[in-house]
Amino acid sequence: MEDKVERRSEGQSIRCKAAICRKPGELLSIEEIIVAPPMPHEARIRIICTSLCHSDLIFWHMKKDPPSIFPRILGHEAIGVVESVGEDVTEVTKGDVVLPIFIADCGDCTDCKSTKSNICSNFPFTISPWTHRYPTSRFTDLKGEIIHHFMFVSSFSEYTVVDVANLIKIDPAIPPSRACLLGCGVSTGVGAAWKTARVEPGSTVAIFGLGCVGLAVAEGARLCGATRIIGVDVNPEKQEIGKKFGVTDFINSRECGNKTVSQIIKEITDGGADYCFECVGMASVVHEAYASCRKGWGKTVVVGVDQPTSMLSLSSLEVLLEGKSLMGALFGGLKPKSDVPILLKRYMDKELKLDEFVTHEVEFKDINKAFDLLVKGESVRCVIWMDKEVQSYECSV
Amino acid sequence: MEDKVERRSEGQSIRCKAAICRKPGELLSIEEIIVAPPMPHEARIRIICTSLCHSDLIFWHMKKDPPSIFPRILGHEAIGVVESVGEDVTEVTKGDVVLPIFIADCGDCTDCKSTKSNICSNFPFTISPWTHRYPTSRFTDLKGEIIHHFMFVSSFSEYTVVDVANLIKIDPAIPPSRACLLGCGVSTGVGAAWKTARVEPGSTVAIFGLGCVGLAVAEGARLCGATRIIGVDVNPEKQEIGKKFGVTDFINSRECGNKTVSQIIKEITDGGADYCFECVGMASVVHEAYASCRKGWGKTVVVGVDQPTSMLSLSSLEVLLEGKSLMGALFGGLKPKSDVPILLKRYMDKELKLDEFVTHEVEFKDINKAFDLLVKGESVRCVIWMDKEVQSYECSV
Repeated sequence: MEDKVERRSEGQSIRCKAAICRKPGELLSIEEIIVAPPMPHEARIRIICTSLCHSDLIFWHMKKDPPSIFPRILGHEAIGVVESVGEDVTEVTKGDVVLPIFIADCGDCTDCKSTKSNICSNFPFTISPWTHRYPTSRFTDLKGEIIHHFMFVSSFSEYTVVDVANLIKIDPAIPPSRACLLGCGVSTGVGAAWKTARVEPGSTVAIFGLGCVGLAVAEGARLCGATRIIGVDVNPEKQEIGKKFGVTDFINSRECGNKTVSQIIKEITDGGADYCFECVGMASVVHEAYASCRKGWGKTVVVGVDQPTSMLSLSSLEVLLEGKSLMGALFGGLKPKSDVPILLKRYMDKELKLDEFVTHEVEFKDINKAFDLLVKGESVRCVIWMDKEVQSYECSV
Repeated sequence: MEDKVERRSEGQSIRCKAAICRKPGELLSIEEIIVAPPMPHEARIRIICTSLCHSDLIFWHMKKDPPSIFPRILGHEAIGVVESVGEDVTEVTKGDVVLPIFIADCGDCTDCKSTKSNICSNFPFTISPWTHRYPTSRFTDLKGEIIHHFMFVSSFSEYTVVDVANLIKIDPAIPPSRACLLGCGVSTGVGAAWKTARVEPGSTVAIFGLGCVGLAVAEGARLCGATRIIGVDVNPEKQEIGKKFGVTDFINSRECGNKTVSQIIKEITDGGADYCFECVGMASVVHEAYASCRKGWGKTVVVGVDQPTSMLSLSSLEVLLEGKSLMGALFGGLKPKSDVPILLKRYMDKELKLDEFVTHEVEFKDINKAFDLLVKGESVRCVIWMDKEVQSYECSV
């Protein structure tokens, strides 16, 4: 790292490598870019490692703009070390190990002050091409073309700039390739069971879609004491993978014969699951999850990200008569700055599983391989190391 | 009463008067009928008074069968005295004052044993023409034609037969014209705020539709400590009526100019109500209620009874991003045998308002006037006295 970057970079632009998505669906192009110094309330971060999340894939593919816009630096699950901070930054300082989170936690608004909401009003979540406080990018390529931000993180770069509202200072004892997972997918799943649904001990859970988020729901449900965890997926290989995260029953939704998945779940649970989680991102699967919930108290949690135009259709009389509830929560209802440190501690205390999510690790130069693995459904999480020699926080910025 | 009925009627059929709905939408016909003795697990009850609920109107009008079927004895909010019991009845005995409830509370099934559900599995709620355990009616007219039951109560009759799973023995100290209100509408509204939504002190509530149920939601929300209660109705007269039940703000949904009701609610509450209740029974109003809820923690409760074919359409992405929840609960989520006695006690303790719901009282012979008042929106609750001389439980059966 020391060869590549000026040690006294503070206040100066940094020239470094980034994986740029120049056109939807095309291979990322690793190029040199210029990263401007952080603006007030921002920090510039040297990324140690990043992992690829399904949301990156969605916006890598998406052709319609906005929110799709190119060229852009994707990536939002990452761990880094603060290289420098802008004015008015007091929460973090140079050398701090930080976990960026795509939703803000400003600490000042009604939502951030409430224990009930994680939807910051000062800095709402959008798929903005900029940072929160300024309609500008910190990234340009060597020709001077603006490169856009993504989800306020843009971690597929050796250096990025993030608003302090989106940064959590973390304990450097936790390995970076585990901590980065809590940036999105694993937190979302664990949080959906823990904070959104508030799964009770002894309960029955059904999870539709056993990707990283669905497996994390299983892990969250297991931690909450659920005794039966039913996984539903079209891929039969998910049965074995699911077992690692506490999935006790597996339903291949392509092999249900004349029955619907909800009919099978109702049969094997004597009436329906206590909690159902939709982790696919399809309105039709939300219906099936809602139908799989037990009357009287069943909760259905929407976790999967669907198209904005996709509508969910429910009979209002059924909603009334069946006593079920339907809810959703971005980032699993977790408040970044207070809840994520709890999850990190539970990992260090050997309660929360994180190691099992990492199925692959690649070097930054091979980032397109990570995309390939996720597209093919072969990886749960692939960790991308920015520098294969630097797999800890020790190296100075 | 003693002139009309044999004192030793136990085990015998009783000849008495009932208001029969012979054709949809036609005036009820007061005729003499024969009420058979109760079957095992049933009780025969002398009705003291009954009140007219909007659900009676729905099935009075409804032409499609089933669940619509004629001739039928409507009525399901009532108070009576047990005249005789069938075999295997231990919960109530002759002379007990009882409140019939249209949903069962068998005490034996998983739901009735759970604190979380009020949807009895042994005796599910339907619009059955019979009693729960036998596909037969206890009512015939003097020509021998079968008269059908309604909602397991059929209180528009001097005598009716009800399953013990649908009966609550109550304290005779409470006036019958107040106790009967807890048979459906008032309980549903109060319960929706208290048990389903669990309204928190200091919160903001919006209620769509200020009929009896909506006003009861206001009363329930007031009891839970809500500080702002916004009522929405098309009828401007509801503004004054609402004030009696704690409604602090009124929106006439026909006078919103270019704005939607949800826009106005969001403006005046700085982001949306904490709890929204749909008490009209229209999917489009559920949308508006959901839109009026605050992001982050808003709960929308479906209370109004809609057509079975009426579909509610929500964006699944919005459900995910906004952190709101949607729920429904029959009878306000109340467990009849444990929760209704709490409400009765709160009335006797002068905490729960009931008197204000009774806007009219008529004699049984004038029952069609009660229908007329409700159809015109002039009554909140009209109490119908079976015998104008008997307005207490004292008269012997």
